[in-house]
Amino acid sequence: MQILFILEIIGTIAFAVSGAVVGIQKKMDIFGVSILGLTAAVGGGILRDLILNITPPAAFQNPVFAATAILVSILIFIPAVRNVFEHGKKIYEVLILLMDSVGLGLFTVVGVQVATAAMPERNLFLITFVGVLTGVGGGILRDIFAGNTPYIFIKHFYACASIIGAWTCALLWPHTGAVTAMIAGAAITVVLRLLAARFRWSLPKAR
Amino acid sequence: MQILFILEIIGTIAFAVSGAVVGIQKKMDIFGVSILGLTAAVGGGILRDLILNITPPAAFQNPVFAATAILVSILIFIPAVRNVFEHGKKIYEVLILLMDSVGLGLFTVVGVQVATAAMPERNLFLITFVGVLTGVGGGILRDIFAGNTPYIFIKHFYACASIIGAWTCALLWPHTGAVTAMIAGAAITVVLRLLAARFRWSLPKAR
Amino acid sequence: MQILFILEIIGTIAFAVSGAVVGIQKKMDIFGVSILGLTAAVGGGILRDLILNITPPAAFQNPVFAATAILVSILIFIPAVRNVFEHGKKIYEVLILLMDSVGLGLFTVVGVQVATAAMPERNLFLITFVGVLTGVGGGILRDIFAGNTPYIFIKHFYACASIIGAWTCALLWPHTGAVTAMIAGAAITVVLRLLAARFRWSLPKAR
Repeated sequence: MQILFILEIIGTIAFAVSGAVVGIQKKMDIFGVSILGLTAAVGGGILRDLILNITPPAAFQNPVFAATAILVSILIFIPAVRNVFEHGKKIYEVLILLMDSVGLGLFTVVGVQVATAAMPERNLFLITFVGVLTGVGGGILRDIFAGNTPYIFIKHFYACASIIGAWTCALLWPHTGAVTAMIAGAAITVVLRLLAARFRWSLPKAR
Repeated sequence: MQILFILEIIGTIAFAVSGAVVGIQKKMDIFGVSILGLTAAVGGGILRDLILNITPPAAFQNPVFAATAILVSILIFIPAVRNVFEHGKKIYEVLILLMDSVGLGLFTVVGVQVATAAMPERNLFLITFVGVLTGVGGGILRDIFAGNTPYIFIKHFYACASIIGAWTCALLWPHTGAVTAMIAGAAITVVLRLLAARFRWSLPKAR
Repeated sequence: MQILFILEIIGTIAFAVSGAVVGIQKKMDIFGVSILGLTAAVGGGILRDLILNITPPAAFQNPVFAATAILVSILIFIPAVRNVFEHGKKIYEVLILLMDSVGLGLFTVVGVQVATAAMPERNLFLITFVGVLTGVGGGILRDIFAGNTPYIFIKHFYACASIIGAWTCALLWPHTGAVTAMIAGAAITVVLRLLAARFRWSLPKAR
């Protein structure tokens, strides 16, 4: 499925950037940065494949995703590119937000697609859960490996955007076909995530 | 098996409370608190099912466990309920201890049951290991996600209570039948865990 | 395969020491130290077996690895042994470096062997990836559980030594046979890791 492959590559690039930027922020060396980019990019898909018993996970079978993630991480590491992040935390924050949003949206619907293909009986709960895990899994591993509290626990609406996107995708699927459902689900996730960040949509906080 | 389902629901509620309370303590928003409650409640079972190759894991197939965990977390989050924890760390500590003990006991014997059913050849080591992993796995993930050192590494006797409970359950199983073995194993785990906390049973510490 | 078993036991002892020493450094009690030694020793193999769908993972089927890891951890915990680490951070650092290097080398080639046996079609990428995951997985889990940033992200050349060793092993395999390939791969990993630490081989660092 051509579109699936393209979406996964874009999501891989987006999450690899988010991982590499976190590694640079933590002053890791080029290997640390590459492995953090790799983890963010393929972590969610590996968790998804373990849950669905797709073994070995796709990331271990086809080197294109790992190679893309590592190349992107090294690119981000190059001083000329890196310098951009040194001229103000602002650009760093906007880039990580954008890349993380795009990765979240794409991996969520890719997860829905893989779960739908693996489990034809259409358990909506399972499909949504797997979609969200695929979307947020790489970011959780990235943050744990970097010693940060995972984004998902502190950013407004992060998990919620993925859940709504996964639902949209799974519900549209039988009516509109795969392509429309995936584009709609990914778009809704990205838009909700960005709107939440822009307007600081606030969820009730303890204390 | 009716009793298994009831024990799992009670364990789910207990661990969801322990996760939600940790999230509230860390001042997470309502989604962070829900996801931490969910992780604590279903994490151990997911690890168990991955180890035993039960895929997709039960928590992904049957929404009742995830729904229960999220509902409980939201309940704990409600200001009136939450206020209880603000009037003194004492109540917070007692509640998290009690809930964590009950969850540990129940999930340990549920793990023994699932391992026994999945591997009929009765490998006592495997059964115990899987029981303990089911018991402690959710709490480990909860603490890692929240940025704490996992309980199991610092609390007196934590793993030990689960190991003794799992052994008791596995050894009684062929003689007393499943129900008696599970109740005995869970009770021993909970009692040992609480006694250890109450009387500060001290294991040798480094330095 | 006799040699495989011997290598795995030595690797288990090496990583158990590295885990126990980290636990002692963090002032954990005897159970915490044992579980950290156990995690370091069997964690990489469990991740490998999950990826290759070998279930239940070897560490859950054969108690000899877990028993060895726990015994070694308890030994390290004994005051007379522990005192050695109190007389200067130097010895501690050398020991953890040596043990971690030997464990890294042995587990890397054991991972290559298991992946080769499980996937006869010889996907070099998969074999290398699984070898490296087996080599570094236990150490990553050890460091996360102990609340440290995983070694692999900060130590010069850590992942690289494992990758080069896994490649060497996988490439020699069809030409020299398993034993020579594994010894060569493990030796190269250990030597590279030690040389890198001794001469502070420096990889470009961010900023």
